[in-house]
Amino acid sequence: MISCPLPINSYASVQLAHGGGGKLSQQLVRDIFLPFLDNEYLRQLHDGAIVPVGGSRIAFSTDSYVISPIFFPGGDIGTLAVNGTVNDLAMCGATPLFLSAGFIVEEGFPMSDLQRIAASMQNAAVNAGIQIVTGDTKVVDKGKADKIFITTAGIGIIADGISVLPTRASAGDAIILSGSIAQHGIAIMSVREGLQFETTIASDCAALNGMIAELLKFGESIHVLRDPTRGGVASALNEIAAAAHVGIEIEETAIPVADDVRGACEILGFDPLYVANEGKCIVFVAPDAAADVLQAMRRHPLGTGAAIIGHVVADHPETVVMKTRVGGKRVVDMLSGEQLPRIC
Amino acid sequence: MISCPLPINSYASVQLAHGGGGKLSQQLVRDIFLPFLDNEYLRQLHDGAIVPVGGSRIAFSTDSYVISPIFFPGGDIGTLAVNGTVNDLAMCGATPLFLSAGFIVEEGFPMSDLQRIAASMQNAAVNAGIQIVTGDTKVVDKGKADKIFITTAGIGIIADGISVLPTRASAGDAIILSGSIAQHGIAIMSVREGLQFETTIASDCAALNGMIAELLKFGESIHVLRDPTRGGVASALNEIAAAAHVGIEIEETAIPVADDVRGACEILGFDPLYVANEGKCIVFVAPDAAADVLQAMRRHPLGTGAAIIGHVVADHPETVVMKTRVGGKRVVDMLSGEQLPRIC
Repeated sequence: MISCPLPINSYASVQLAHGGGGKLSQQLVRDIFLPFLDNEYLRQLHDGAIVPVGGSRIAFSTDSYVISPIFFPGGDIGTLAVNGTVNDLAMCGATPLFLSAGFIVEEGFPMSDLQRIAASMQNAAVNAGIQIVTGDTKVVDKGKADKIFITTAGIGIIADGISVLPTRASAGDAIILSGSIAQHGIAIMSVREGLQFETTIASDCAALNGMIAELLKFGESIHVLRDPTRGGVASALNEIAAAAHVGIEIEETAIPVADDVRGACEILGFDPLYVANEGKCIVFVAPDAAADVLQAMRRHPLGTGAAIIGHVVADHPETVVMKTRVGGKRVVDMLSGEQLPRIC
Repeated sequence: MISCPLPINSYASVQLAHGGGGKLSQQLVRDIFLPFLDNEYLRQLHDGAIVPVGGSRIAFSTDSYVISPIFFPGGDIGTLAVNGTVNDLAMCGATPLFLSAGFIVEEGFPMSDLQRIAASMQNAAVNAGIQIVTGDTKVVDKGKADKIFITTAGIGIIADGISVLPTRASAGDAIILSGSIAQHGIAIMSVREGLQFETTIASDCAALNGMIAELLKFGESIHVLRDPTRGGVASALNEIAAAAHVGIEIEETAIPVADDVRGACEILGFDPLYVANEGKCIVFVAPDAAADVLQAMRRHPLGTGAAIIGHVVADHPETVVMKTRVGGKRVVDMLSGEQLPRIC
């Protein structure tokens, strides 16, 4: 089950999979960016950096959005660009405050679509309780970009008594998933492939900071937060196992997947564990607080489907093992190729 | 001289000039983004936003870089992406601290070029004394982006006793320009057009925060800082005149332009006042501090060519007037069309 991607030097040029959130993305960061840009903050390799500014701990994060199509069931590129960065800040244990937005627009892009995206971003900002405070727009000649790309960055503040870091995963931690997975990726693929299901599968795109604020009340019991976007739950868990040098054990039957999404995954040949989510989070929590944290999540509208899907173990460090539906065990590796280009 | 661009509603689609840093860019922000995203910080329409975080005043800024060609005399897209955002923070009166970088890469982009850009970014970061602490990479299919686009965002801290805002321009202020203009734009155009001059005209791309730190020692005497990038000195002065509801008078003979750049401008048909700079700043300073600030700038390697180019006046509010070389006066309007697409 463990694939061995080529070393980065074997690639003379950038491949789609280098942006896929899996092994090749990790390699690109490790072998191309880190050797030059290495510093103590970048090395955290978290969803954002945690930096000291004026006596406060600030979370700082960025993501570029190149999703295609730009409008999809459950959201659009604007919604995604706001919620995605809000979520990355929340996953650092921060209260998201302010966002920036850089627009790269293809000449000839309809002004009405730009208005619609601006409106979506404002809606998303209001829902998340943050403000978009600065921005930039560049226009490139027709054919030199695909419609519109948006890069948001965000800053948030981390309260005292909060320490959410991938390295804090430790043996015994319960692993809670906030709800059913693979909705976002399948929503996008359905639109692209023109698939019709009985119901429209909509993206789960949502700002998680409201729910995370409830969890942060449990203070240092919250060890790790992660939103399983590109590369899905499988890649997120592998990243955390590697960062903390721990083993992870999950149970296939405990992982919530909606029936329509499972059906679509089967048709499309995808394993839901590798499909992107945009409104879900994984919480690593100290064992004694697990039951209370699970209840707190379930009380929040975005966490009604929360479930404990596994635990951190002392065995098999840096490896994620799944007890399968049929009673076996298998290694769940990181995404190794590119499953869904331009999913976010 | 004053052109009247069409109202934004007249454009069914986004034009190159909407990203040019002139009137149409202003309209796009005012008519498309502000109606939805309006808030007290975005409304500052500064080079960055100044926001309160944990008891500190933080400057937060972003820019997307789509320059073509990506390597040019005097720098590359990586240098530019770091220095540009560092400068935007410095223009808010902040000490730049941390940057984020979002990469949008076209499939097939040479890995060696990506390494070269990462190295440039690190060089620029070290020179500017900042750290790149978080990032993201997306890859789009071949033909869906032009090589590489980089969006940087940055945060910096504003010390007590500093208040640098476009609205602080007031009658009597001296206007200092840090050196000769139009180098960046002409460097890019020369490469694009394959023009050969006796010497290579190189971009002036540089981080200005070191020089600005010297100026900030003059505290509240420093009223406005602005780096005249897209749209050039003419557009920057017009923006400030409009923001502060003041008139501006400049003298053509006082504006430094290097001979080779002036020659190239004549050949290419450009007015240097509208050509982009990437390592220059304009300083509005209280009259009693002007001579000392000028000396401080000239002591810094990036300000040896600094000169007082004009003053803020109580007459003709929101209008920039230039005393011409031949003794006349003319209104210097904002850039109205698109002069140099993809200059940054």
